[in-house]
Amino acid sequence: MNPDTAKQPITLRDMGSFHIGGRVVEITGKPMREILFSAGGVPAQIDPNGQYQIEAMYVQYFLPQHRQGKYPLMMWHGGGLTGVTYETTPDGREGWLTMFIRNGWDVYISDAVERGRSGFAPPEIWPDPPLHLTKANPFERFRIGPRAGWNSDPAKREPYPGNQFPVEAYDDFTKQFAPRWTGTNDAVIAAYIALVDKVGPSILMFHSQAGAFGFKVAEARPDLVKALIAIEPAVAGDGALAGRLKNIPTLMVYGDYIERDSRWPHMHRLGLAYAGSLRAASGIVDVVNLPEAGIKGNSHMLMMDRNNAEIAGLIQRWLANKGLAGSNPPIR
Amino acid sequence: MNPDTAKQPITLRDMGSFHIGGRVVEITGKPMREILFSAGGVPAQIDPNGQYQIEAMYVQYFLPQHRQGKYPLMMWHGGGLTGVTYETTPDGREGWLTMFIRNGWDVYISDAVERGRSGFAPPEIWPDPPLHLTKANPFERFRIGPRAGWNSDPAKREPYPGNQFPVEAYDDFTKQFAPRWTGTNDAVIAAYIALVDKVGPSILMFHSQAGAFGFKVAEARPDLVKALIAIEPAVAGDGALAGRLKNIPTLMVYGDYIERDSRWPHMHRLGLAYAGSLRAASGIVDVVNLPEAGIKGNSHMLMMDRNNAEIAGLIQRWLANKGLAGSNPPIR
Repeated sequence: MNPDTAKQPITLRDMGSFHIGGRVVEITGKPMREILFSAGGVPAQIDPNGQYQIEAMYVQYFLPQHRQGKYPLMMWHGGGLTGVTYETTPDGREGWLTMFIRNGWDVYISDAVERGRSGFAPPEIWPDPPLHLTKANPFERFRIGPRAGWNSDPAKREPYPGNQFPVEAYDDFTKQFAPRWTGTNDAVIAAYIALVDKVGPSILMFHSQAGAFGFKVAEARPDLVKALIAIEPAVAGDGALAGRLKNIPTLMVYGDYIERDSRWPHMHRLGLAYAGSLRAASGIVDVVNLPEAGIKGNSHMLMMDRNNAEIAGLIQRWLANKGLAGSNPPIR
Repeated sequence: MNPDTAKQPITLRDMGSFHIGGRVVEITGKPMREILFSAGGVPAQIDPNGQYQIEAMYVQYFLPQHRQGKYPLMMWHGGGLTGVTYETTPDGREGWLTMFIRNGWDVYISDAVERGRSGFAPPEIWPDPPLHLTKANPFERFRIGPRAGWNSDPAKREPYPGNQFPVEAYDDFTKQFAPRWTGTNDAVIAAYIALVDKVGPSILMFHSQAGAFGFKVAEARPDLVKALIAIEPAVAGDGALAGRLKNIPTLMVYGDYIERDSRWPHMHRLGLAYAGSLRAASGIVDVVNLPEAGIKGNSHMLMMDRNNAEIAGLIQRWLANKGLAGSNPPIR
């Protein structure tokens, strides 16, 4: 991205939000409850029986005045997180949301079903308890540092040498964690499909867990998905359905330290094998392993790393090379 | 608000987000869990013991290029809802967020602790289960229609005659509901105070349940709170502390149908009594009962009602009359 534009105002022809998808369920046979909604308020008799609206998805959109992108760009976050992933970084730098708005993209940014402003269903519907992440867990899983490098004292943490994650803001990053369920994939995918059906032809950018969603939505709506940008997908698509994606240009981006992690070498291999399936089906796939491209030190959270503008620029150039970024994209 | 500006672009000198406040807690003595984060991924061994970051608050900000407001304007939502309250209305009209941005206000819009992008704490910390709202419940409690007017079939619902709520979009509105806890007020207030301490002198707009937060934060930070806009506060401040607010201009706005509800007459009387306490302590308070001002049919969700621009204009004029809206606010 061009650093000169970073201080320019952002002019939007529109911005707003909506919820999409979901379903209505009925709960019966529960006793009445008396609830004091606010201390000092008036108690209310609450009948927990009845219909509940569940599994809708929250979407916020920002439409720049000078649109350059050929299609809207969707930003789908990874597991245990929300759309906040793409906003301001935990250490207060500009995130990908505004970088891509500045480059003229209509951006639709969402909280997957169960997460953030999408809410979650009652335990009668989702019986398993949600999973809360400790502060320590993503330090290792997101390849900021090895398990042995974790310390509750920020001054004593030992990240991987040269790591680009703003480790001094790791504690602030942990404030973005949102509890998650592990059995909600079908509901998440249904809402994403409803979103693509509403917005129309779109480019999907998705991170980590959302590999399980982005590729699936492309398989379900190959005519509406115009490009895929998979940021360290933890899950690949279905190789047997690779032919459905043959007209969808696909970019896969991976960071550093993969071989030092216990799980990422396998997930990386799965991604590379899937890229092979897409190519075998005449698909157009580019895999960028950043260290091989001379870009070192990236964690799993590429969009927050210190060089996040450099990675955004790489994605913007790829989109431009595919003829999707408009006539005059201000790429660097 | 001026309808002529509604189609103008929105130019921002900056936009972004952050999390603020919260605390770290430790959980011990739990067994290891094996979690498959994504179907098709690689199982991870998760140690649930350790430190958790809880009770931080998500805040999104939009700073217009041509600032008019003398201080930043905060928008705090009510119970069972999130910051989405102030965004696009459920039927797709412009909400107060962008109306006030267009009028030149730096707006900070947040999800209270426990709600939306602020996440929620593990059951070891918040043992009570969250409360999920049925679709039917707010139809009555938010004074859209009487309990007997509810029907699961939208075509058979009977709202109060003349109601301004976009009742045809009620089912979409229910997608905004977020589960809530009832014992988290202290944590919510702590995060709001941290927000005011960070942003500095500010104007607080708050709705419904957030009456329990807006007045309390003003009592705690009377020098930082420059005005209070209480939209149908369900809870008033502490009359014994009214003197602390004597330099803070306060506007209280109430909608229609209050006397037809089972709980609102009492909450309304509490609000009026509190306004009396503020006046007795030399405070500056304006109470607008909209029906008495000739504005009929407003539900509890004034910011979503069909005449939401008219109510926003009333608030904007009040701010201008208090000298807080800048030299040239485009009020109607």
